[in-house]
Amino acid sequence: MENEAQHIPFFTKLFTLSQILGILSVVLVGVWCGYFRKGFAWGSEPVLQFNWHPFLMVLGMVFLYANGALIYRGFRSEKKKKLKILHMLIQLGAFIFSIVGLVAVFDFHNNSSPKIPNMYSLHSWIGLCTVILFACQWVIGLLTFLFPGLRPSVRAAYLPVHQFFGLFIFVGAVSSCLLGFTEKAIFSVKNYSSLPPEGVLINVTGLVLIMFGGLVVYLVSHPKFRRQTTEDEVLLTDTVLE
Amino acid sequence: MENEAQHIPFFTKLFTLSQILGILSVVLVGVWCGYFRKGFAWGSEPVLQFNWHPFLMVLGMVFLYANGALIYRGFRSEKKKKLKILHMLIQLGAFIFSIVGLVAVFDFHNNSSPKIPNMYSLHSWIGLCTVILFACQWVIGLLTFLFPGLRPSVRAAYLPVHQFFGLFIFVGAVSSCLLGFTEKAIFSVKNYSSLPPEGVLINVTGLVLIMFGGLVVYLVSHPKFRRQTTEDEVLLTDTVLE
Repeated sequence: MENEAQHIPFFTKLFTLSQILGILSVVLVGVWCGYFRKGFAWGSEPVLQFNWHPFLMVLGMVFLYANGALIYRGFRSEKKKKLKILHMLIQLGAFIFSIVGLVAVFDFHNNSSPKIPNMYSLHSWIGLCTVILFACQWVIGLLTFLFPGLRPSVRAAYLPVHQFFGLFIFVGAVSSCLLGFTEKAIFSVKNYSSLPPEGVLINVTGLVLIMFGGLVVYLVSHPKFRRQTTEDEVLLTDTVLE
Repeated sequence: MENEAQHIPFFTKLFTLSQILGILSVVLVGVWCGYFRKGFAWGSEPVLQFNWHPFLMVLGMVFLYANGALIYRGFRSEKKKKLKILHMLIQLGAFIFSIVGLVAVFDFHNNSSPKIPNMYSLHSWIGLCTVILFACQWVIGLLTFLFPGLRPSVRAAYLPVHQFFGLFIFVGAVSSCLLGFTEKAIFSVKNYSSLPPEGVLINVTGLVLIMFGGLVVYLVSHPKFRRQTTEDEVLLTDTVLE
């Protein structure tokens, strides 16, 4: 426990830094879409409807998703059951944002004239794979850990798989955002190669996002920041996985 | 030790899978540059000189680099000192390939007519940051762990930082490759949006690369695959860090 106590201040500093970078990346992408890309609309103006896509993907699949993963580290003294429900709800929110974000881009492609083809780029392939994996992960996670909840031995066996795919989906989401930034910059930013303010903003947002991603992966995966099993939880084996 | 022994067959399977994915990504990028992009040249033909860039970056910064990081896991029964020298040499090779790969793309930009601007895209920003971090990491690693080799306590304190940046640089390298694939596909593949064979090949290579990346991060970072400190090493504290 003394060992754990030594790691908490370090964790708190890195966690704070990750929140600053995460909020900054959402704000930067908001400024990009809201100011440089002329703001948001739905249906009536496909070009403005598109802007929901980068904004909601960064907000949902990256920022919210990361915080959903981090709650076990950030609120280590809370009851596990409560954290599991919170984790499930945050990831549900992230998933809903992502679906709306996907509808925005498909609508934009289909309602543009001429129509823009869907699902041809590496960005779209990695992005859609990531969202599909996320949906599977969420459903399997719900059935395994919460409702109806499988046998403790099955849950214990599945937990590392859930954690691995959790990180893999996050890395896929960050990569996909970076690819999307590059696509949009090449397609829509006039003279991207002479680095106008919008180009600089996109590149800086990409760098902030990759720093946020790296830090979150570290905080989530490093064993020394892992939630310690309490004595009560050890005595009540079932509760460990509750 | 029994616990470790149980993990070795699982590690070996995943390690083999990672090698298959890694070699496949190098082969795919080789086929892309060698066949679809008309092969390799140096100096005389800037367009063909460019092709060394994706090939050497994937071979050096991704495949070789990953194997340099994995040797501590793959050859766990070898002496640590030997592994450290091997690690340093493989990463030196990865670095040399990367520098030649960078020269290739700068030459291509500068010798094209009209000249193509350098260092404006998110790909170039992340890519160059990654290579610079890699150079710093290599030099600091050499001075800390090998020659002249600092005090054991300093080495022990620096090791987690070295490991964190090692993974961060790898993730930066994979992300940068994916961004480069997207740029090249948009700039050079005719009708990328109708998914010609070259477009499919680029996207598939990107997917293989991200799967390879995810697997390598898992193998390198997961504590259960960590090299166990032998009894001899514990007795000779200095040797643990040798």
